[in-house]
Amino acid sequence: MFNSIRLKKKKKIIGLMSGSSLDGIDVALLEVSGYGPTTEYHLLESETLRLVPQVRAWLLEIRNGSGTSPGRISQLNYLLGELFARAAEHICRKAGIPLESIDLIGSHGLTIAHLPEATEMLGIPVRSSFQIGEPSVITERTGITTVADFRSGDLAAGGQGSPLMAYVDYLLFRSRSRGRILLNLGGVANLTGLLVGCSPESVLAFDSGPGNCLLDAYVRSATQGREQFDFEGRYARRGTVHEALLERLSLHPYFRRKPPKTCDPMTFPEEFLKTALKETGHPNTFDTIATLTRFTASTVAKACEGFLFPTGSFEELIVSGGGAKNSSILDEIRRLLPGLSVSLTDDYSLPADIKKAVGFALLANDTLHGQPNNLPSVTGARHPVVMGKILPGRNSFP
Amino acid sequence: MFNSIRLKKKKKIIGLMSGSSLDGIDVALLEVSGYGPTTEYHLLESETLRLVPQVRAWLLEIRNGSGTSPGRISQLNYLLGELFARAAEHICRKAGIPLESIDLIGSHGLTIAHLPEATEMLGIPVRSSFQIGEPSVITERTGITTVADFRSGDLAAGGQGSPLMAYVDYLLFRSRSRGRILLNLGGVANLTGLLVGCSPESVLAFDSGPGNCLLDAYVRSATQGREQFDFEGRYARRGTVHEALLERLSLHPYFRRKPPKTCDPMTFPEEFLKTALKETGHPNTFDTIATLTRFTASTVAKACEGFLFPTGSFEELIVSGGGAKNSSILDEIRRLLPGLSVSLTDDYSLPADIKKAVGFALLANDTLHGQPNNLPSVTGARHPVVMGKILPGRNSFP
Repeated sequence: MFNSIRLKKKKKIIGLMSGSSLDGIDVALLEVSGYGPTTEYHLLESETLRLVPQVRAWLLEIRNGSGTSPGRISQLNYLLGELFARAAEHICRKAGIPLESIDLIGSHGLTIAHLPEATEMLGIPVRSSFQIGEPSVITERTGITTVADFRSGDLAAGGQGSPLMAYVDYLLFRSRSRGRILLNLGGVANLTGLLVGCSPESVLAFDSGPGNCLLDAYVRSATQGREQFDFEGRYARRGTVHEALLERLSLHPYFRRKPPKTCDPMTFPEEFLKTALKETGHPNTFDTIATLTRFTASTVAKACEGFLFPTGSFEELIVSGGGAKNSSILDEIRRLLPGLSVSLTDDYSLPADIKKAVGFALLANDTLHGQPNNLPSVTGARHPVVMGKILPGRNSFP
Repeated sequence: MFNSIRLKKKKKIIGLMSGSSLDGIDVALLEVSGYGPTTEYHLLESETLRLVPQVRAWLLEIRNGSGTSPGRISQLNYLLGELFARAAEHICRKAGIPLESIDLIGSHGLTIAHLPEATEMLGIPVRSSFQIGEPSVITERTGITTVADFRSGDLAAGGQGSPLMAYVDYLLFRSRSRGRILLNLGGVANLTGLLVGCSPESVLAFDSGPGNCLLDAYVRSATQGREQFDFEGRYARRGTVHEALLERLSLHPYFRRKPPKTCDPMTFPEEFLKTALKETGHPNTFDTIATLTRFTASTVAKACEGFLFPTGSFEELIVSGGGAKNSSILDEIRRLLPGLSVSLTDDYSLPADIKKAVGFALLANDTLHGQPNNLPSVTGARHPVVMGKILPGRNSFP
């Protein structure tokens, strides 16, 4: 089973991802050879497909409300499976590649609950995570073997089920000559440290704190919802950093914790910002945006200085995620970390906003090869795990 | 991948099932050779492990209430995974067989939502079903390759995701010399018709109506909860059938529908019985129990006469499920269908209450062999599907 896929020198793999910001579905189509440390890939096509407002509204209902039902979640699980399947079909059409020539799909799904800290139930420590986007629907519509639901394997082994991308960073960006830091600026900022010639066991990864979450929330609120983020960092350049506000924000206890540590946007809720704004006399809009921009950059810089630089020598910082398009953040980081050459994953043929979709395609490839694809040193799992559930497609039984 | 399991002449497989009555976890350990039509098995050990009341209460909360959250469902999904894993470990200890010698686990999970009728969402017909009992936890704790979540594949192909056991009936009970009807008396009564020398395409399966659901509910209510069911049908034997009540119950529109049709206990809610009792002047307790017993038997008999006998010749009726222990129901069926020899699956070395757990072990075996394991003629799916998601265990990569 799966041998005809595994034995191919070059596989065409689709990666599917939907972030917790509910913006849309990221889809990437790549050609892959090897697996694990021998992985090489070439991105053929990618796109972010927006979710229609109705779906966003339905998803917000089940995620935010406490009043949902198993039936409602069940329906949205299957509906999202349909949308993922269509995204896979769409990217093939766009690339001019027939669906039948795709070998494998890797799908992360959309997270509607993530509870990585153990809760005792009947004396059993329970950690869990919950992704929807039914992979049976993806397999049925496309006919393609699909691997889905990666986090559960790591969680079951005692890990946090995240971050999963640190392993992909290791596969794609480790170097024998340069120490590299990967920075993903999503809602929060994820850092992965790859020392020269590092092994999987020596990869360091954690979240430094907020990425775009506070900045985006403030811009949305200040523009009454007309703008979703500070486009290319323009507003930040019109303001001046308010030192008292910056200092107040930096007092958040998360920054005193040592890695391994992960956070999510709810670690830095809007209330936290509102309180800080009130206590510092409500600086003007542009100054606040400039300060939040500096805040993200300075917490990234301090995390590098405090937790990565002491472990060895780093020469490069490579940025991905939606925030990579905000040149004000990048300029601040460059200024605060003059010893690092700062670039985008785009400079390595990997569009900054599609990196995770590429990552889940590569995780699926490893699953099919029986290659453990979590990093216990990073997630806290007791041992390496082959994450993912395999749904055999019509191409599994040739 | 999986070849070392597939190539074994005899596999040890564990089946896990938890019914919607929330009684407990059924677990069966079997030795299996072949797959699909060549399947043969020998039951090594089986047991029903009761769920502790706290877990039942938690499950009822999420299933019945409209006010649950994705986080709560996520936690119970993982907790139930732990309990399934323990059931697998328990049955190995009981059988004196080391866990490491088990080749495969098939797990149905516990259904918390089943919505097989299409609902339009964004113009897409969405049918779905939702089982919990995280299989990643089962694989991690046991190390054994696990197949889970069978219904989703059939649903994605346009089927109802049920009944799944008709395929297992075909595997285990088809005969070249005798026409057989399989009757499972659970909450509802499922019938499978296997004509002499039948093919998968000619299997007929549907639900005749109530099995034990009304009877159990009435006994619980009449004994103020002290008794859960009419033990061995004793109360029924102390009453006389109330013809007006029987006639009133038989007017339910479900009985006029032709197969394919399926129902669940909610098709025959307690309100339906209460209305009928009121309209017929509240017969006494024993007479009501006798009437409900006859009602189950007569709707089974009419379904056989109306929908199965016209298709060909049947000689045997083989009964499984909790209701198989109620000899009053069985005596009534014998009386109403004198042309059939009535026996229990126990007479075929298959304990009546463990049949579904055995079934999911065999479905998992077929999944690993790439053998389609739904019956489109029965579920309404557009085509045969290899149902199930495969979680590679440590025994997948020898």
